[in-house]
Amino acid sequence: MIFADLTMSLDGFVAGPNQTLQEPLGAGGEQLHQWALAASAWRQAHGHEGGEAGVDSDVITETTSRTGAGIMGRKMFSGGSGGWADDPNPTGWWGEEPPFHHPVYVVTHHEREPLELTGTTFTFVQSFEEALRHAQGAAGEQDVQIHGGGTMVQQALAAGALDELNVHIAPHLLGSGSPLLGGSAGRLERARVIESPSGVTHIRYRVVRIK
Amino acid sequence: MIFADLTMSLDGFVAGPNQTLQEPLGAGGEQLHQWALAASAWRQAHGHEGGEAGVDSDVITETTSRTGAGIMGRKMFSGGSGGWADDPNPTGWWGEEPPFHHPVYVVTHHEREPLELTGTTFTFVQSFEEALRHAQGAAGEQDVQIHGGGTMVQQALAAGALDELNVHIAPHLLGSGSPLLGGSAGRLERARVIESPSGVTHIRYRVVRIK
Repeated sequence: MIFADLTMSLDGFVAGPNQTLQEPLGAGGEQLHQWALAASAWRQAHGHEGGEAGVDSDVITETTSRTGAGIMGRKMFSGGSGGWADDPNPTGWWGEEPPFHHPVYVVTHHEREPLELTGTTFTFVQSFEEALRHAQGAAGEQDVQIHGGGTMVQQALAAGALDELNVHIAPHLLGSGSPLLGGSAGRLERARVIESPSGVTHIRYRVVRIK
Repeated sequence: MIFADLTMSLDGFVAGPNQTLQEPLGAGGEQLHQWALAASAWRQAHGHEGGEAGVDSDVITETTSRTGAGIMGRKMFSGGSGGWADDPNPTGWWGEEPPFHHPVYVVTHHEREPLELTGTTFTFVQSFEEALRHAQGAAGEQDVQIHGGGTMVQQALAAGALDELNVHIAPHLLGSGSPLLGGSAGRLERARVIESPSGVTHIRYRVVRIK
């Protein structure tokens, strides 16, 4: 199964406007993720102790456990664009021990050898289709997660490849920014709703039909 | 209290692309409203019998009961634009006995005498601010509802006038169309979530702060 799992503002953005290397989630974007940053499962995946137990943490654990391989866009990997020689962040945002602990395929126009970090190898491929093929092979019996950003989710939907969409709706308006969705029309089936005390509403949809 | 109450697709649209007089909700837009069209409270408000009882119907009844006056855009009134002499739909979409049963203020650039239909009088005003002033006076102890469309909600938010936003998230993607939100950034407080068997998720937010 191929699924996406992203946090969006009520007005549909995964990141705010004016994204920079200093503020990769754009103006107001980081607050969308407070629910995750505060959760013990997130902190643990990032090598920290503490944090809050509860449904937010459970949702994260569930996602991590089912994922056998991941796909992300270049911007989510490092924030850079263009040739790798000029990337200000060549080993990515994610530190020496990235939180993924599964193979991650990064879609980029620019060729590069795989980057092996502790527990996670990033492999660079030149199209979403190629990423998907590799990730499905690597995931085995487990699921493939589209990590983001929005354009990766939009490509997965447009390709008819997405089976499930998990949206964490944060109680914020960003006004503008990078949209999660757009372009594809279709019908979904809501599979579940989890109302967290953090104010976030976790909704799972199955993709029934994309036109 | 001033509240808005609208149905949107998961990708944030209240109506699809290519809106015409024949298809006022645009391509794919009508399916967003199936939950309401099927509900007994909606059918009753429109002079029909039957329909389904349940949480969808209860949500509609609750909204109707609290509303003392309403505000809508010209397009929601008739679908037309420009001078009234050329409006193909001069008495609006809503029939001889509109479902509102409260005074409705229509924001339009084009002056016009009030239109009194059975149970509902439409008064035409030239700005959102004017509509708001009139509606607050007319509503008395009851609430003012921003009926739509999205641009009216956006104006209410931008004016700092919106207290509460009720969003009915329909399990559909439209791909493009008229967005419910956009432009204003701010923080909301989720007040409640009602998960309907129809697949729609009814979420109520209080507006905490708009930047």
